[in-house]
Amino acid sequence: MAVFRFHDIYSSTVQVPVKDDKAITEDQYKNVNSRTLDVYADLVLVFKYKQPILKGKGVTDTVSKPEYEQKTLAAYQEVLTSLTRVGLQYETRPSGSDTLLIFILCPWAVLKREATRNSINDWLAGVKVADTNETEQLLQPVKERDQSLDVITESDRLRLISDLITTMPSEGGAGIHPSHHDYVESILPLHDKAFNKAWIKSWSTKWLVNEDDLTRVKDHFGEKVAFYFEFLQYYLQWLAAPTALGVFIHTFGSSFSIFYGVFVIIWAAFFTETWKRREKELALLWKVRNVSKTEMRRPSFKGTMTPDPVTGEMVPFFSPWQRWSRKLLGIPIVVGGALALTTVISAVFGIEVFLTIYYDGYLKEYLIYVPMVLYSLAIPNVAAICKSVASQLTDYENYETHGSHEYHLMQKVFIFNALTSYMSILLTAYIYIPYGPQVISTFQAYGLSFSSATIDPHMLQNRLKAFMITTQAISFATETIVPWLTRRAKVQAVKIQKEVSEKLHRESHDDATLTVIEDSEDAKKFLKRVKKQADLPEYDINEDYAEMVLQFGYVSLFSVIWPLTGLCAFINNWVELRSDAAKISYNARRPIPSRTDTIGPWLDNLQHIAWFSSLTNASILYLFHGTIDSANSSHTPRLGLGMLLLALLISEHAYLALRMVVGLILDSIPTKAELEVRKQEFGVKRSWLSRLGDAIGINSVGVNGLSKRAEAEIVDLSAQLENDFGVQAIRSNLKTN
Amino acid sequence: MAVFRFHDIYSSTVQVPVKDDKAITEDQYKNVNSRTLDVYADLVLVFKYKQPILKGKGVTDTVSKPEYEQKTLAAYQEVLTSLTRVGLQYETRPSGSDTLLIFILCPWAVLKREATRNSINDWLAGVKVADTNETEQLLQPVKERDQSLDVITESDRLRLISDLITTMPSEGGAGIHPSHHDYVESILPLHDKAFNKAWIKSWSTKWLVNEDDLTRVKDHFGEKVAFYFEFLQYYLQWLAAPTALGVFIHTFGSSFSIFYGVFVIIWAAFFTETWKRREKELALLWKVRNVSKTEMRRPSFKGTMTPDPVTGEMVPFFSPWQRWSRKLLGIPIVVGGALALTTVISAVFGIEVFLTIYYDGYLKEYLIYVPMVLYSLAIPNVAAICKSVASQLTDYENYETHGSHEYHLMQKVFIFNALTSYMSILLTAYIYIPYGPQVISTFQAYGLSFSSATIDPHMLQNRLKAFMITTQAISFATETIVPWLTRRAKVQAVKIQKEVSEKLHRESHDDATLTVIEDSEDAKKFLKRVKKQADLPEYDINEDYAEMVLQFGYVSLFSVIWPLTGLCAFINNWVELRSDAAKISYNARRPIPSRTDTIGPWLDNLQHIAWFSSLTNASILYLFHGTIDSANSSHTPRLGLGMLLLALLISEHAYLALRMVVGLILDSIPTKAELEVRKQEFGVKRSWLSRLGDAIGINSVGVNGLSKRAEAEIVDLSAQLENDFGVQAIRSNLKTN
Repeated sequence: MAVFRFHDIYSSTVQVPVKDDKAITEDQYKNVNSRTLDVYADLVLVFKYKQPILKGKGVTDTVSKPEYEQKTLAAYQEVLTSLTRVGLQYETRPSGSDTLLIFILCPWAVLKREATRNSINDWLAGVKVADTNETEQLLQPVKERDQSLDVITESDRLRLISDLITTMPSEGGAGIHPSHHDYVESILPLHDKAFNKAWIKSWSTKWLVNEDDLTRVKDHFGEKVAFYFEFLQYYLQWLAAPTALGVFIHTFGSSFSIFYGVFVIIWAAFFTETWKRREKELALLWKVRNVSKTEMRRPSFKGTMTPDPVTGEMVPFFSPWQRWSRKLLGIPIVVGGALALTTVISAVFGIEVFLTIYYDGYLKEYLIYVPMVLYSLAIPNVAAICKSVASQLTDYENYETHGSHEYHLMQKVFIFNALTSYMSILLTAYIYIPYGPQVISTFQAYGLSFSSATIDPHMLQNRLKAFMITTQAISFATETIVPWLTRRAKVQAVKIQKEVSEKLHRESHDDATLTVIEDSEDAKKFLKRVKKQADLPEYDINEDYAEMVLQFGYVSLFSVIWPLTGLCAFINNWVELRSDAAKISYNARRPIPSRTDTIGPWLDNLQHIAWFSSLTNASILYLFHGTIDSANSSHTPRLGLGMLLLALLISEHAYLALRMVVGLILDSIPTKAELEVRKQEFGVKRSWLSRLGDAIGINSVGVNGLSKRAEAEIVDLSAQLENDFGVQAIRSNLKTN
Repeated sequence: MAVFRFHDIYSSTVQVPVKDDKAITEDQYKNVNSRTLDVYADLVLVFKYKQPILKGKGVTDTVSKPEYEQKTLAAYQEVLTSLTRVGLQYETRPSGSDTLLIFILCPWAVLKREATRNSINDWLAGVKVADTNETEQLLQPVKERDQSLDVITESDRLRLISDLITTMPSEGGAGIHPSHHDYVESILPLHDKAFNKAWIKSWSTKWLVNEDDLTRVKDHFGEKVAFYFEFLQYYLQWLAAPTALGVFIHTFGSSFSIFYGVFVIIWAAFFTETWKRREKELALLWKVRNVSKTEMRRPSFKGTMTPDPVTGEMVPFFSPWQRWSRKLLGIPIVVGGALALTTVISAVFGIEVFLTIYYDGYLKEYLIYVPMVLYSLAIPNVAAICKSVASQLTDYENYETHGSHEYHLMQKVFIFNALTSYMSILLTAYIYIPYGPQVISTFQAYGLSFSSATIDPHMLQNRLKAFMITTQAISFATETIVPWLTRRAKVQAVKIQKEVSEKLHRESHDDATLTVIEDSEDAKKFLKRVKKQADLPEYDINEDYAEMVLQFGYVSLFSVIWPLTGLCAFINNWVELRSDAAKISYNARRPIPSRTDTIGPWLDNLQHIAWFSSLTNASILYLFHGTIDSANSSHTPRLGLGMLLLALLISEHAYLALRMVVGLILDSIPTKAELEVRKQEFGVKRSWLSRLGDAIGINSVGVNGLSKRAEAEIVDLSAQLENDFGVQAIRSNLKTN
């Protein structure tokens, strides 16, 4: 077993055209020396040994120190043994006083083995299209095979190697997973600086991102990240319609336009339904259809070992009934959390309204800041508690795959996100404006005096405006500027800490062991860069999805209040598409590529919002249409439960009917990708049939052709028919009738 | 080409155990002589030459007679040539003065060819499970194959032969389809008297029909008929719950029980969702999953010849956009028809109410029969017009397969059926009882006097009772007794006609030509029997489904009015299950077996009714709960749009949520059949992998096993690690900390 030398792999800086080809071949891969500094190690494993077990006891007693050293050494050796067992090569470098960076390289033969294994699994799960052809190829001797298997994209390569490291030994991997290892802090691919730079430059200088751009992102960061960008781009394009109409209505029309409200409901239905279609198409184009079926078991999945009903193997099993009972038990908890959050938000809302508008007494100049403090302290904290409960609940529900775990977690978390985002607008529209005047007059009847304030629909508009403008600005700042600042501060802090510790270090003993490392200046620079990347936070794609879906909520649920909502969203998203690229490149570890064929929980969340929009638009229009502009109408919204509910009922059913019809129409028209797949399948069909040939009496014309034997038997029957009873009967009967 | 002799095939009456084995093998099939009289001909083609073209001209002119004879002879010969071309054998016998019966027999070799063709098509469309295994078998020389292909059930045999006769020549069939041929009146399999007798006897003597019984029906009449019986049986079992609860509530509870209403909504949701699951399971058990994909083009499908985007062949194509625009155009027509039908029903309802309850004047004793006459004349006729419009609309929508045509026709027809069935109950509940008193008092205010009649919820109960009891009795009579009577009458009429025509015949010319047929007495009897069967009406399975689904509607929508509705339905269906068997056996032609994997449009109709039931139950309970029994409450229902709509809104959303949860739970638990299929698929997987073997570096342990080479390389690293940078760093750092 040859461990490769550190020098061999990073000291050269010759570039290979890895990025333009989007895929590397065997020759390029083998020629490790000719690869750039940034891509020379496939993955880096961060091994941290900062005495995690002893720390809890307060003071480190001297007796257990050698024990801990032994333990750490054993863990380190176990990691190396596991890597070796699956055929990976590695090289370790210390980084700081408590971290080892293990640079992992996957030899070409191992990569090819994994690719083949993956390819078979894909075929078995129905991910690959041309099933039979592919498999036949696999059956042929290796030399004769075409090269399709031997071209692996960057993202596939990293995914395969990462899977090899993290999957359980029983499933053929090394079994090293950061979430289940005391010493392994993280596993990360290294950023390809050149690619990132080119990516951001290219996207910042064009108006629309095209399919090729997305394919390039897919080949570099994997399908999951590419799906997010495709969704963002698709949503941006669809936003053009409400943006344009919104600007038009805002300029020439009246507030609370019924036309605009109806339009938004239809727009939301069309957007969600067409995205479903686009998603399916992308899954086919990117060859990731059914990919969720190939997902491995989560390491934290707990089950009793039971013989699998299908394979007969002993596998951990968790009864779906048990999971459902846990899920149903979880419903009151989630509902309780939602109620608690609602209560807190309502209370803060009430205090805010009271203090900012009506209160006129003692300490007003200070008390006016109370709501702001509450908003930024109480609500986020309660929401965070709710989310942590949701996370524990989802753990308790014990899902088998990462995908289903994520799905159910995100569904719960989204409820709390939606409450935090929409609750104060809902309160303003349905409680404060309709019932506020009554409450105030009641208070006044009891002799309490208030500063006078008119309650009218303008309040609602202002609140939405504030949300659309400030929220988006804040999110932009927290996503891009804040991380950059904190990183700088951190670096500074670490530097100071280091200097201090080095001083202490020098005092206690000599630095002999560390001088063994004879790396060049280049290598030291490189190590520094890797350390920096390892310290970055992980990229959480769900946060980005949540942001977009919540924004879709503002547009579809509330933009009838202020038609420029669409415009704000449109501008924000144009920037977002670029700033997210920068975020992934500079403010986060490079994500480990993973495959997906859907945006998962977010599609459902979008559909629920669209459904809900049929209710908010109808009720907001019922309550507020015509209350602002016309001079002779009152400023208070109309009330009347019966008519309001009727409006809701009609609007909701119209929405559901529209969604169904649009869905059916879209289903009945195949996408190009679908036709392509069917074509491939037909190719398989034809190739099989040509093999079957005449052996079983069917000629090569096709499944539906006639057998040659039968065709040969076709003769003119007229001569034989003279004595046929039928002919005689016809002649006799037709003459006599 | 050997035409088989008539005598050879029917003169023997030796029985073979065809019914018990449920499938026949080559030996049994070849041994034609040993088969029973009834099953000796595979199919009978009825050729009618009653001058269909000349008839329109009134008087037959002598010049065109020979022409017509020539034409008829040519058509007859063309039929025979077509049959010969696909390899079928036949024998003709005249029957009466205008009909030829062509007895068709499919030679074993042809049948086997068709079975193979069908098997390949099934494999390609994903109907068969063990795809790869099956195909590999096909690829092996015929002799080595196992016998699975050579065992064909009765229903498969008839289906294959019928398909061979009816499909277009371009798709490998003879292209003879009754709906597109001037002379071919029908194609029918002959009833197997022994089977029918045993079937009815067995089912009438047991309480519940078990799976084996249904499999037997499936193997004889095909999957479509078996699906109906399975549905009927499944529905009957589910009816036990509302029957029991209904009897309990009727005996001990109060009218309009809220508990019962809630129960019925939940029951309807569970029933439809579990049936979906059962349907899928059956499709897997009967190996008809995805069978709709193998359907041939309808002969009446019209399309422009376009190269297929998938296969490149020229095929008739009809744009889905055009179909959707026609569909959307059809919506106002269907809605218009529904409105017209509603108007007629409402008018008749109004007249009935007026005449039977309030009218007290001139000619009352005669006028009282007017509503009955209107009910039996006006409504059925208007409904029939609506249905014929629906049929024309569906033709216009131009569906490609028989399945989709039937689906969309049935969806439209069901709307009219539902209106006819439910409208008068809806009118009573929502119009007459709530608003009747007001209308009457208005009339009275204008000085018109009425006989006094109390308008109370009992009316509603009586109307439902009448529907449940009389409608079901009438339907039983029309399905079983009336056909038998009319058949008898017809036979009598034909006999008289024959005697008359024979007299005329004898006078005009001698009967020489017909005496050529030298058949035995047995043969003559047999011919008579075939003629009788050919004169029976076709079995329409959709009528039976419609009856059941409409009945499900009475139970789920209205049984809260009168809780014994379930009991009536339960009793009726127990009888129905048996009487439908008798209907198929004696009152209809034997249906040509066809495959299906779903009850198609009826599942959707069931779901729509269940959805609608969440509205009717909520509103009926809101209007009438507590209006009958409690002495101190008024007899008139409460009104109030707001609260009513709120009740509807809550009930509907609760229903939708429940349906979703039940659906998700059922989806997450695989059925036995599903596990069986997955097991088979895993078998395929394993067999492929064992072939792949070490050739590509993966050993036979499984996809996820380690390569042998990698395992050989596992060594103890501890010796090598002394000089590892990582080990050195750990040692140095942990000592110094």
